[in-house]
Amino acid sequence: MKEIEEGICAPKGFLASGIRCGIKTSASKRDLALVFSQQPCTSAAVFTSNLVQAASVIISREHNKSKKIRALIANSGNANACTGQAGLEAARHMTEMIAELLRISTEETAVASTGVIGVPIPMERITAGIPLLASSLAADGGDAALEAIMTTDTRKKSAAIEFEITGETSPVRIGAMTKGSGMIHPNMATMICVITTDAAISAIMLDKALRQAVNRSFNRLTVDGDMSTNDMVLVMANGVAGNSPIDSEGPAWETFAAALETICIKLTRDMARDGEGATRLVTVTVSGAACEEDAAILARSVTGSNLVKAACFGADANWGRVLCALGYAGIPFKPEETSVTFSSAAGSLPVFKNGEVLSFSEENAKKVLLEEEITIHAIVGNGNGKASAWGCDLSYDYVKINGDYRS
Amino acid sequence: MKEIEEGICAPKGFLASGIRCGIKTSASKRDLALVFSQQPCTSAAVFTSNLVQAASVIISREHNKSKKIRALIANSGNANACTGQAGLEAARHMTEMIAELLRISTEETAVASTGVIGVPIPMERITAGIPLLASSLAADGGDAALEAIMTTDTRKKSAAIEFEITGETSPVRIGAMTKGSGMIHPNMATMICVITTDAAISAIMLDKALRQAVNRSFNRLTVDGDMSTNDMVLVMANGVAGNSPIDSEGPAWETFAAALETICIKLTRDMARDGEGATRLVTVTVSGAACEEDAAILARSVTGSNLVKAACFGADANWGRVLCALGYAGIPFKPEETSVTFSSAAGSLPVFKNGEVLSFSEENAKKVLLEEEITIHAIVGNGNGKASAWGCDLSYDYVKINGDYRS
Repeated sequence: MKEIEEGICAPKGFLASGIRCGIKTSASKRDLALVFSQQPCTSAAVFTSNLVQAASVIISREHNKSKKIRALIANSGNANACTGQAGLEAARHMTEMIAELLRISTEETAVASTGVIGVPIPMERITAGIPLLASSLAADGGDAALEAIMTTDTRKKSAAIEFEITGETSPVRIGAMTKGSGMIHPNMATMICVITTDAAISAIMLDKALRQAVNRSFNRLTVDGDMSTNDMVLVMANGVAGNSPIDSEGPAWETFAAALETICIKLTRDMARDGEGATRLVTVTVSGAACEEDAAILARSVTGSNLVKAACFGADANWGRVLCALGYAGIPFKPEETSVTFSSAAGSLPVFKNGEVLSFSEENAKKVLLEEEITIHAIVGNGNGKASAWGCDLSYDYVKINGDYRS
Repeated sequence: MKEIEEGICAPKGFLASGIRCGIKTSASKRDLALVFSQQPCTSAAVFTSNLVQAASVIISREHNKSKKIRALIANSGNANACTGQAGLEAARHMTEMIAELLRISTEETAVASTGVIGVPIPMERITAGIPLLASSLAADGGDAALEAIMTTDTRKKSAAIEFEITGETSPVRIGAMTKGSGMIHPNMATMICVITTDAAISAIMLDKALRQAVNRSFNRLTVDGDMSTNDMVLVMANGVAGNSPIDSEGPAWETFAAALETICIKLTRDMARDGEGATRLVTVTVSGAACEEDAAILARSVTGSNLVKAACFGADANWGRVLCALGYAGIPFKPEETSVTFSSAAGSLPVFKNGEVLSFSEENAKKVLLEEEITIHAIVGNGNGKASAWGCDLSYDYVKINGDYRS
């Protein structure tokens, strides 16, 4: 498995574009994106579990019943959520225009929106921009598309990999781009993640691989505990790589699923690192739990604790808060058999072992915790369950960014 | 029902004291408190549901099986949590010393601790201080005791009320003091709340009244989503008021329970207002839900949202985040039948009605939201369930206070 360039356009047969149509107030920022496969696709998608769902989520969920999505139009600057009937009509109209211009059926299109909630979406600007958006589609358009879905993101988050499936002559590629930095929490976030692949894979096996990958990556990401109305992860597979179609579990599916998981974890870490106001990427690994799901719940509880997050910002080895957050996760474990270690590139700092405090130097703790990537490892027993979750620290800038987002 | 002075010493027969024994580093701050009833009591208590429990919680829970607690020793500056066997022995020893000095049995004593987690409690200072603590007991010692349980609290939080029970000649009093400003979340907080009353009431009916009051007050309080290892609410009733003992439901119990709830809600609001870094008290009221519990869960979800909290700090009428937080609470409701209004002493601002955005002036919104007390009212349907929850905004100072609490 090797990392390659070009993100969503790395897999064969995918084009993308990103333009500025004027939704964002900034005169220089792109805000409308399109990703398109020249060949028909199988597709799978995961959407927010928030009861309040953006119009784009409602429409895309409806269209994805076809399992044939091959084009996604996405806008930033407006979430088109809590916008009533007019919002639904707007989202539907966006997909209809795209379907017509690309000469595909509407059930092959999806729509995603991100930005402020509850403000009517400026459809006249979007409809005016769509022809240029479609005519701009290009094999090197991934970067423009990525820019056009960013909101408070400070970094571009995309990835692509190439890998071999045993017995196949040509390699397979997966590309992905994502946006998201605030309102990020299990299950999911104000995140839009678009994944493309030239693998030939049935919709059912694609769905299975996507759900497993999302469960082990994006669903273990917490920035601020708020679950968005707009979350969507979409994967489109066009089969251009020419592999024997993957239509059941087995080595080929395992290889594909592992590659998909790798790319999703990479983007999850990128999103945590780019959490609103974040100065550190915090990985929490829990081992020794009864099962993987228990370990994941415990790990997420720690990444979600404001007190742990504030301590990470202050480079404070406040392991008591880690214990406390494990304690209210709702998963049984024995505090007296629990151990906690902080680590980073600067070293490892065991602070708590089998229920007892270890003495450590505060100077050494600062050295370990001032790194940009830190890991908190908690061993909670002798079970086989192990999982990681990802988050970031809580900084002044988080408050600043969210204290007056709309203005 | 009328408010009176003197907090925990307002009910007849209660003495209190607060001294400095040297747990806190500040040379001027009290850190050891004692509350004592001269007469035997019935008692009831509610403790943290965190799996990781402070030594004081473990010991007090054990002693309260007697339902006869009449003395509480409390310290601040050290939570005596995650301190292993030595911590348990320390907590037990504190109660034994107090029992001996006050000539009561250890099962009539409780202990509470608050402060930093995981640091061995300095028992030599505490044991050296206990004789002075006991000899300082006085009918006007409530204020000193209150000071001695405060940590990052910036305000003293106490209350007392006097009320009549129909058919009784003498009034009954309830007094209370509490500490808590960070690590506050349902169910409960780094809060210690001590309630005294001179009512004559059976332990069973006292327990029932306490659980109902806590469920409608402290359990609806969120400051930062972190549930402490040390939470405790203790009520001691010594019967000195001379009313006919309340030993079943009926008008007398209803009156007592309502008074207890009133005082708990008052302290809940005080704690929200004094949340770490808080600049505003935020009350979220949800009505129209299927039942009170559904309404409470929805209201708590809004008070717990970092994004709503940050918006309140910025006086930003970001009702979309309110909708979003309602949406992930896990309680079914119809967004299209939902309405949201912000209000304060400066006026009322309807922003969302039956699923549609209302236009409002940003200037007016600022005026309403810049007040120190704001209310967010969400109507989520036409059910009879109504509940309020309390919280505060998320400010730079929250991050500052918690970024390096230990130093």
